[in-house]
Amino acid sequence: MINRAKIAAAAIRTADRVRHTPTVHLSPSDLGLNYPVTLKLECLQHTGSFKTRGAFNRMLAAVLPAAGVIAASGGNHGAAVAYAARELGVTAEIFIPDPTPAMKVERIASYGARVVRGGATYAEALTASRVRLAETGAMEVHAYDHNDVLAGQGTVGREFEADAPDLTDLLVASGGGGLIGGIAAWYAGAARVIAVEPEACPTLHDALRAGHPVDAPVGGLAADSLGARRVGALMFPIAQAFVTEAVLVPDPAILEAQRLLWDRFRMIVEPGGATALAALLSHRYRPPPGAHLGVLVCGANTDPMPILNR
Amino acid sequence: MINRAKIAAAAIRTADRVRHTPTVHLSPSDLGLNYPVTLKLECLQHTGSFKTRGAFNRMLAAVLPAAGVIAASGGNHGAAVAYAARELGVTAEIFIPDPTPAMKVERIASYGARVVRGGATYAEALTASRVRLAETGAMEVHAYDHNDVLAGQGTVGREFEADAPDLTDLLVASGGGGLIGGIAAWYAGAARVIAVEPEACPTLHDALRAGHPVDAPVGGLAADSLGARRVGALMFPIAQAFVTEAVLVPDPAILEAQRLLWDRFRMIVEPGGATALAALLSHRYRPPPGAHLGVLVCGANTDPMPILNR
Repeated sequence: MINRAKIAAAAIRTADRVRHTPTVHLSPSDLGLNYPVTLKLECLQHTGSFKTRGAFNRMLAAVLPAAGVIAASGGNHGAAVAYAARELGVTAEIFIPDPTPAMKVERIASYGARVVRGGATYAEALTASRVRLAETGAMEVHAYDHNDVLAGQGTVGREFEADAPDLTDLLVASGGGGLIGGIAAWYAGAARVIAVEPEACPTLHDALRAGHPVDAPVGGLAADSLGARRVGALMFPIAQAFVTEAVLVPDPAILEAQRLLWDRFRMIVEPGGATALAALLSHRYRPPPGAHLGVLVCGANTDPMPILNR
Repeated sequence: MINRAKIAAAAIRTADRVRHTPTVHLSPSDLGLNYPVTLKLECLQHTGSFKTRGAFNRMLAAVLPAAGVIAASGGNHGAAVAYAARELGVTAEIFIPDPTPAMKVERIASYGARVVRGGATYAEALTASRVRLAETGAMEVHAYDHNDVLAGQGTVGREFEADAPDLTDLLVASGGGGLIGGIAAWYAGAARVIAVEPEACPTLHDALRAGHPVDAPVGGLAADSLGARRVGALMFPIAQAFVTEAVLVPDPAILEAQRLLWDRFRMIVEPGGATALAALLSHRYRPPPGAHLGVLVCGANTDPMPILNR
């Protein structure tokens, strides 16, 4: 299991490549809630999501083969691997599932990666990517189920604790679980870490209930970033130990959170990036008295029109 | 002339009302420049601009009359006064010039203020507002030419210095001059403070050249936020003492800066909010060797479509 030492090493390894993203402290009245909230704006990260951290840590910790790197991704991880590969001077092939939004495809291609349509789902794209891996000898950069990826994502938690040491409850969106796995491993019980998932993608919720990773439905507004069919094997024991609970939110609450971030902050945030905040606005998570909430805004890559047109 | 003590007092007075906005540190390669840049994201302020600071400081330093407050504004100041009035429980009337963008009019009205169309230009709206002031006994909250407004805007500089103490050069957009006047009074020569204005609104540039405030043209992309006809009488001696130079940028460079902030950060920033950054991207300001640049992103309120459609 990864731990604080591995995450601290990841932070040092990636320090020149990753942005230290800012936090903004909100008073209770800012959101109409009766507790303070601190947002961490990880949407300002390179490539528009936290995935850059895990991608760089994985690639900087390895000896990269001449054949470069290969990843399967519904979008943000693919963009992060493409960006990291360009920065490190190696080639990248990204296998995307068919429903990947056009904006994310463009972003991946804009960093010079080869984009390959890999099938109807993330699982099919992953299978296709592994056939290609065997052919080429490239290195796989898994989207979440690798310890160097988990440790890289954990650096979000390390920064958040350093910049907002008083947080009692942290809300983090969860898909394959790399982000919340890394953050929960950093906090290791020092704060409540709450997973937030769309009702249409209850991956961690179902796994915690079953006592082991299980296949879950994939659908709804945030499927392109949170739509893994099951959580990673490496993150699951971390979640059992250090994730307090997994909360589900309906899609309309996610859209409401996106629109609030636009109205109050003029930030365009993707559905997966607004999912954690949605748990507060919809009261699906009710913090205990005296809580100081930390909310991670984890991704920005989306078509702004559904947010702007109402 | 206002000074650091008055600005520190303003910061204490407004601390519960104003957001401490975050900074984000960029490496030289992030913007393709050969020096580091720290952005201060004042666009995340309440009402989407720094104007909230001056409005609250003015209103909290005064005994507010029962007739409430009146302001003339091309938009952001009006929104800030409307918001502050609502928060403090007094009525507000905002006199707007005809070219005020629809989004800003909606924002002012959304805070419950009475919106009055005051004429073709800011100067006409100001005149109309003063007729109404005499009728009602309300208090004027001037958009820039009042010491409590200047001191409130100066709190941006105080935060910026606290959060990024190594800055050598600060770029700040200038219209009527309240913001740069407050910031220059805070730094008082401890860093180079550079005014950036659109070529179509060279208010401070022309005043510094003439040796006194003079009427200047008003036009172009950023006129709704930077289009004062002449700088304030109170800020001018501060600018003479502590503003290093006034740089002009063409409108296409402003649009390019808006689009870069969208592409790299998914932030929607108004033309006036991107004007300071435009001076770096267009190389209209060339920092000396060893410089660490601070750039204030001072406002968010704009129609996003010209940024998104290209």
